[in-house]
Amino acid sequence: MSPINLAIVGVGKIVRDQHLPSIAKNPDFKLIATASRHGTVDGIQSFTSIEAMLDAVPEIDAVSLCMPPQYRYEAAHKALSAGKHVFLEKPPGATLSEVADLEALAAEKGVSLFASWHSRYAAAVEAAKAFLASTKIESVHVIWKEDVRHWHPNQDWIWQAGGLGVFDPGINALSIVTHILPKAIFLTSATLEFPENRDAPIAADMHFKNADDIPVHGEFDWRQTGKQSWDIIAETAAGKMELAEGGSKLSVNGELKFSAPEEEYPALYRRFAEIIKAGKSDVDLAPLRHVADAFMLGKRKFVEAFHD
Amino acid sequence: MSPINLAIVGVGKIVRDQHLPSIAKNPDFKLIATASRHGTVDGIQSFTSIEAMLDAVPEIDAVSLCMPPQYRYEAAHKALSAGKHVFLEKPPGATLSEVADLEALAAEKGVSLFASWHSRYAAAVEAAKAFLASTKIESVHVIWKEDVRHWHPNQDWIWQAGGLGVFDPGINALSIVTHILPKAIFLTSATLEFPENRDAPIAADMHFKNADDIPVHGEFDWRQTGKQSWDIIAETAAGKMELAEGGSKLSVNGELKFSAPEEEYPALYRRFAEIIKAGKSDVDLAPLRHVADAFMLGKRKFVEAFHD
Repeated sequence: MSPINLAIVGVGKIVRDQHLPSIAKNPDFKLIATASRHGTVDGIQSFTSIEAMLDAVPEIDAVSLCMPPQYRYEAAHKALSAGKHVFLEKPPGATLSEVADLEALAAEKGVSLFASWHSRYAAAVEAAKAFLASTKIESVHVIWKEDVRHWHPNQDWIWQAGGLGVFDPGINALSIVTHILPKAIFLTSATLEFPENRDAPIAADMHFKNADDIPVHGEFDWRQTGKQSWDIIAETAAGKMELAEGGSKLSVNGELKFSAPEEEYPALYRRFAEIIKAGKSDVDLAPLRHVADAFMLGKRKFVEAFHD
Repeated sequence: MSPINLAIVGVGKIVRDQHLPSIAKNPDFKLIATASRHGTVDGIQSFTSIEAMLDAVPEIDAVSLCMPPQYRYEAAHKALSAGKHVFLEKPPGATLSEVADLEALAAEKGVSLFASWHSRYAAAVEAAKAFLASTKIESVHVIWKEDVRHWHPNQDWIWQAGGLGVFDPGINALSIVTHILPKAIFLTSATLEFPENRDAPIAADMHFKNADDIPVHGEFDWRQTGKQSWDIIAETAAGKMELAEGGSKLSVNGELKFSAPEEEYPALYRRFAEIIKAGKSDVDLAPLRHVADAFMLGKRKFVEAFHD
């Protein structure tokens, strides 16, 4: 099978850091075009709009959409309507309804839609899932605290309505938790802290449970300086499980059980090729649905203004 | 077929005004028990908790859950787990995730779950749907403005986080709009006005579009004194359609096309009996999903305190 001709829309930091190296080493894909208002990739034909690109390069088979979520629906709709497979960076859209609409469109057009959750492919996630399936879970604690000034300097879109604020990293934790827990969880209460000059939250505290009454507590904060925390801790009948460093290290009762080099985006592109070959889509809205639930059910609290 | 033995949980105003008269005239149902912290129904055995009721009256086949949405999941989970069919008043829950979980549980237990949207059964809704399917829609305007002090006096739960505020009536409009428009819509921007002393919005302005770029504008306000507005207006190639008075009157270019007496709750119970007999569920999350999208995507604005 000849490689899948791929285009990227929205050439920014995540594309340079993750998408390009992953595509370069995956023989299933060949990058043949980009569309971006500003960014380009050396040696690859570039356009400033997806319309111009799709018109000029009909041999494109698939597109990866990496622009901010507020602008993703329109591009995805154009690409799917043109019969292209679509890879959506996380979060898959600014609203749940638009992603549901895209999923229906992909089915109608017979192409693959991939709502990607890169953290689900962190090294130790499957090992954590297997461990939790083997024991009785008593409680879960998610601690996702990082320094927004370091990780998202001057990214204004992230603070705009629809940019999700602290849920931009927090949704990574939710994508892992919803994958590794054996039963669905749902929110029972939440508090969202909004800087008084911003339209998106800088911190959130979420309490979930599942049908067995297992409590799941999530703490998300963008004001963490010093040590950064991306940890999921479960108290279980078999001891304390720690899935640390964003899903890359698994320990039980302090003993390291699994660790491997970071390979998230290469795994995402393997998965994208797999669903294209199988003629199916992979769209799990659970992480974004929990974020929407938090905005709907949560109490709002205003905190001091945030300046980059 | 003998009647379906029904129980009601949460005996309040909506139960007295709507559920009891609708059940009384539907031969498919027989009310045999109630559970409520305070309310009872004359001549019907009553309990103060759903657990006590389910234990004491095993012949219950189905339950209608009419308590505030924040408390609905636990009761629904108990009833479904006990093999009972469940009717959920609107909105079906405080979060999208919990309703998705209940839908899966109903399927597992082989019982029917009904997420009811009473306004979809307003008299002229089907006529409006047929009209819109017969022409080209240019734009849609939803105006849902009422006086909260008149319609929801001292209902504190409606102002708490999860109580939805102005979306409690607004979701009725969204349940009609999502039913009568031929294509799915999704939110592109929204502004939510929160009284500074409340956790739920008193007003909202929502802009949607669909894949054909048809604009849908929704105005929701709980501060309307004088004339109350529950209108959906569409500009179309065949003229101006007005679906007025909460879905009960349809006019085109000022000419009355359809009107009939209000029959929403009797129709809901006919539908509930129908899905029980057919062995299926009826759970459309679209109206609640649009509300969650508005909370997630919308800008928050604080306005003056609200006191009943």
